[in-house]
Amino acid sequence: MKNYTELSDIEDLQQLITEALELKRGTPTLEIGKGKTLGMLFFNPSLRTRLSTEKAAKLLGMEVMVMNAGSDSWKLEFEDGAVMNSDKAEHIKEAAAVLSQYCDIIAVRAFPDLQNKEKDEAETVLNSFKKYASVPVVNLESATGHPLQALTDAITIYELNKKDRPKVVLSWAPHPKTLPQSVPNSFAEIMQKMDVDFVITNPEGYDLNPEITKNTPVIHNQDEALKDADFVYVKNWSSYETYGRKLTEDKTWTFSAERLMQTNNAKVMHCLPVRRNMVIADEVLDSENSVVIQQAGNRTFAAQAVLKRILEEKVKQTELGKNA
Amino acid sequence: MKNYTELSDIEDLQQLITEALELKRGTPTLEIGKGKTLGMLFFNPSLRTRLSTEKAAKLLGMEVMVMNAGSDSWKLEFEDGAVMNSDKAEHIKEAAAVLSQYCDIIAVRAFPDLQNKEKDEAETVLNSFKKYASVPVVNLESATGHPLQALTDAITIYELNKKDRPKVVLSWAPHPKTLPQSVPNSFAEIMQKMDVDFVITNPEGYDLNPEITKNTPVIHNQDEALKDADFVYVKNWSSYETYGRKLTEDKTWTFSAERLMQTNNAKVMHCLPVRRNMVIADEVLDSENSVVIQQAGNRTFAAQAVLKRILEEKVKQTELGKNA
Amino acid sequence: MKNYTELSDIEDLQQLITEALELKRGTPTLEIGKGKTLGMLFFNPSLRTRLSTEKAAKLLGMEVMVMNAGSDSWKLEFEDGAVMNSDKAEHIKEAAAVLSQYCDIIAVRAFPDLQNKEKDEAETVLNSFKKYASVPVVNLESATGHPLQALTDAITIYELNKKDRPKVVLSWAPHPKTLPQSVPNSFAEIMQKMDVDFVITNPEGYDLNPEITKNTPVIHNQDEALKDADFVYVKNWSSYETYGRKLTEDKTWTFSAERLMQTNNAKVMHCLPVRRNMVIADEVLDSENSVVIQQAGNRTFAAQAVLKRILEEKVKQTELGKNA
Repeated sequence: MKNYTELSDIEDLQQLITEALELKRGTPTLEIGKGKTLGMLFFNPSLRTRLSTEKAAKLLGMEVMVMNAGSDSWKLEFEDGAVMNSDKAEHIKEAAAVLSQYCDIIAVRAFPDLQNKEKDEAETVLNSFKKYASVPVVNLESATGHPLQALTDAITIYELNKKDRPKVVLSWAPHPKTLPQSVPNSFAEIMQKMDVDFVITNPEGYDLNPEITKNTPVIHNQDEALKDADFVYVKNWSSYETYGRKLTEDKTWTFSAERLMQTNNAKVMHCLPVRRNMVIADEVLDSENSVVIQQAGNRTFAAQAVLKRILEEKVKQTELGKNA
Repeated sequence: MKNYTELSDIEDLQQLITEALELKRGTPTLEIGKGKTLGMLFFNPSLRTRLSTEKAAKLLGMEVMVMNAGSDSWKLEFEDGAVMNSDKAEHIKEAAAVLSQYCDIIAVRAFPDLQNKEKDEAETVLNSFKKYASVPVVNLESATGHPLQALTDAITIYELNKKDRPKVVLSWAPHPKTLPQSVPNSFAEIMQKMDVDFVITNPEGYDLNPEITKNTPVIHNQDEALKDADFVYVKNWSSYETYGRKLTEDKTWTFSAERLMQTNNAKVMHCLPVRRNMVIADEVLDSENSVVIQQAGNRTFAAQAVLKRILEEKVKQTELGKNA
Repeated sequence: MKNYTELSDIEDLQQLITEALELKRGTPTLEIGKGKTLGMLFFNPSLRTRLSTEKAAKLLGMEVMVMNAGSDSWKLEFEDGAVMNSDKAEHIKEAAAVLSQYCDIIAVRAFPDLQNKEKDEAETVLNSFKKYASVPVVNLESATGHPLQALTDAITIYELNKKDRPKVVLSWAPHPKTLPQSVPNSFAEIMQKMDVDFVITNPEGYDLNPEITKNTPVIHNQDEALKDADFVYVKNWSSYETYGRKLTEDKTWTFSAERLMQTNNAKVMHCLPVRRNMVIADEVLDSENSVVIQQAGNRTFAAQAVLKRILEEKVKQTELGKNA
C-alpha cells in the first residue's frame, strides 16, 4: 500500500480485515515502526481519529508528531502560482516537501467547506499533500471520504456478523448542523466491496453522489429499508443535491427503539461523535444492540493495519532498490 | 489504588510518601508502564500538572497522549437524557467509553465555574469520567479538589520536616481574581491525615467548607495563627460562604518578610503559579525559606507514585483474573 | 556547549558542521539522550523548528514535551519586582525554575514585538530563561537571532559548496508583513565565521544592525551585489533603522529568474516559510537552483548536533563532579 487516501488503495480488503483482527488480538509489534515517524496534521478537530491513529502508530513502534494546522503553525496557500501577499505564509509545495523530510508517513485531516461542490470534490488539501509529499499520505478524513473509518466499519461488521449475507442499511438521521458526506460516502464504497445486502435510506433530496452509490438501492421509505436489517449504520449528512444544505430536521428519522423494532434485532453503528436523541435515541445507544463503542475501539486496529501495510511497502521498495 | 480522584483513594499515606521519595532518589523503572498509555485531557490550562504528570508517566515507561478539550476535540455534553441540538457534539458517555479503549489510565483537569456551589460540588466532569470510563481515572485538579498537589505537599513537608509534630499553617492571601478552593481543600484534608499541628487562617467570610475543615482550627487573626509555625502554606481562594466571590484584597494578608518573622523561621509553600507581591512578597519567595520550587519538583514523584500504584493494581487484578 | 542561545556559544564551527553531516549520514544514536527530556516552549507558531527539533531530540533517544505558552499554560510575567495583579499569572522566575526540574534542556521560541528596539534587543524572554533556568537553554528563534537556522544554513553551504571561497549574498526581498531581523542577523554572524566572500544587499533604509554586520559590505545596488554569487540567501526583514517598519514593497527585489541570471548559477536559499512570487518567484523555487527543501531538511541535523553537544557537556560535568 503506497498511500491510504481513498478506499481504492486497498487491494485485498478481506486480507486487510483479517490482519486488523489479528493485530487486535495480538501483542504490539514494535519493530517495523522503530525509528520511523508519523506526522499528523489537523485542519479540524478530532478525538477518535487523533488518539486511535497515534496509538496505532505507537503500537507499531513509531514516533508521532501531532500538529494543529493554523494554531501551532502557519496558514497554508494551496493555489498554484499565487502571489502570496495574504495571511497565508507558506505554500503547500514547501510544507509538504519539508514535512516529508521529518516524517516517514504524513496523515492529514481536512474537512470540506460545504459551500462549493466542485471545490470540495477537488480535495485540494489531501491531493496537494499527495502531489507534493515524497512520503506516503494517510487520509484522516477529507472533504469527501473517510477511509480509515470505513475500514473500521468493515472490520466491525465482519467481527460481529453471524450470517452468510447480512443486510446492512445506511440510514440518514437529523442533525442541528450541516455535516460532510465523507463518512457515508466511504461506508457506501466499502459495503459495495463486501458480501452484504446493502441499501441506503434517506429523505428525498438527500441522495448521495450517484457516482459513489452506483447500483446500491436508495430507498426514501425508512420503514421499508429497515425491514430485516442485521446492521443499521445511522448517520447524518447534508444534502449532496442541494449542496451542503440542511433540508429537514425530521425527527421521524431519529433512530429510536421503535425503529430498532423494525429491524432483525440489528446491531446499530455510528462513527461518533453522535448527537444523542437527535441522531440515535438514548434507549438504543444504551441498549445491547449498540456497537458504537466496540466500533470506535476498532479504529486503532484499522489504523494499525494500514500503517503496517505502508511501512511494509516501504521496506519492500528499499529491498528492491538494494537488489536493483 | 483503583482511581485517584480524591484523597480517600489513598489507603496508606505514609507508605505512598515513602515510595514517592524512593522514586525521587531512584532510576526510572520503565517496565511497569511499558505498552501502557496515559491519556491526559485538559479542560483548563496547566503547566506543572501537565508536564510533571507526563514526565512521571514516561519515567514509568508509559506512552502519553495529551489533548486540550474544546480546542483539539469536540465540546462535551454531560447532561443525562439531553437532546443534543446545541454546540456540544459528543456525550461524555461515548467520550469516556471510547477513551477507555485507547488509554489505560485517563487523567482529567476540570476547574469549577464558581457560579453555582451545588453544580461545582457535583464534580460533573470528573464524576462522569469515573462513571463512564472503564479504566482508572486520575484527578489533575477538579472543581473541589487537587489530590495530586496535596500528595506533593505532604511529601514535601515529610521531606523537610525535622520535628516530631511540626506546626503547619494554611494562610489565605489576596489575589486579583477569584480562585477555586480545590488546592486548600485537598491540603486541609491531607494535613488531617498527617502527624502535624494544623491550623487554617483566613479573613472572616473566607472559611472553607466546614465538611472539609472539620475539627481543624480556623483562626481569623493571622498574627496569632502564624506564631511558632514551622510550615506556612500560602494560598488564595475565593469565598466558600459567599460562593465564588472576592470579598477583600486586603494586602496585610500578603505573605511578607514581616509575616515570616512571626513564624518559627517557617518553610514557605505554595502550589504555583504564584502572584508575586500579591500572594507572597519577592523578599520571601527569593529567600532560603521558600521551598516552592522543591515542592513543584516533587509533583513528578507524587504523580509517579500514584500512577505506579494504579498500574500495580491493574496487574494484580489481571493476575487474580487468571487464577480465578 | 552549555547553552545554545547565540552563535558565540559555538566554539568550533567547522567541527560542529562536520558532526551534523555525520549525524545526517548516520543511524540514530539513542543512548546519549535516554531518560532525558527536552521541553519546548512556543510563544509563537512554528513548523520546521518544532518538528525538526522534536525529531532531532528523539533521534538522540530523548523524550520531548511541547507546550504552547499562553494557550496551554499561564501568561508569564517577566518584570522584576512586579506586583502581579494583571492577567499574568506566573513569574518567569518560578516558571523557569520549575521547568528545569521537569526538563533536562529547555528550548524557547519568542519573537520580537518590533515596536521598541531596546525592549527587543534586551531579549527578555530568552535571557530570563537563561537567568532563571538551572538547565541548558536552546534558542528556537528569539527577538534578534535564530542560531539553529544559521547553523543549518552553514551546514547547507558547506555541503553544497564546490569552491575554495564561494561568494555568498544575503539579498533582501519584499513582503506584505513586517518581519524580525533574527534570521538575517544570525546568517550574517555565521557567514562572518566561514571562509566565504560574504556581502549583504538591501534597499536604503534596510541596513541591519551595524554591530552585527560589522565589516561585511552592505550594497544597496542589487545588480552589483548578485554578480558572481555562488549562493544567494533571499530574505525579507523589516527596517532596523526605522525600527520595525516596512518602508517599501519594491518588487524589483523579488528574487526572479532574471535575478538568478545575474549570478554565477547560484544556489538559492531561504529559511522558509517563503511567500512565493513576493520573496522568491515560482520559476526560481521550482528550479534546480533552489535548495530550500534540502536546507529545511538539514534543520534536523543542526538541532541534533547542538543537542548532542549539550548532552555531552552535561555528562562531562557530571564526570568532573564525581572525580572532584
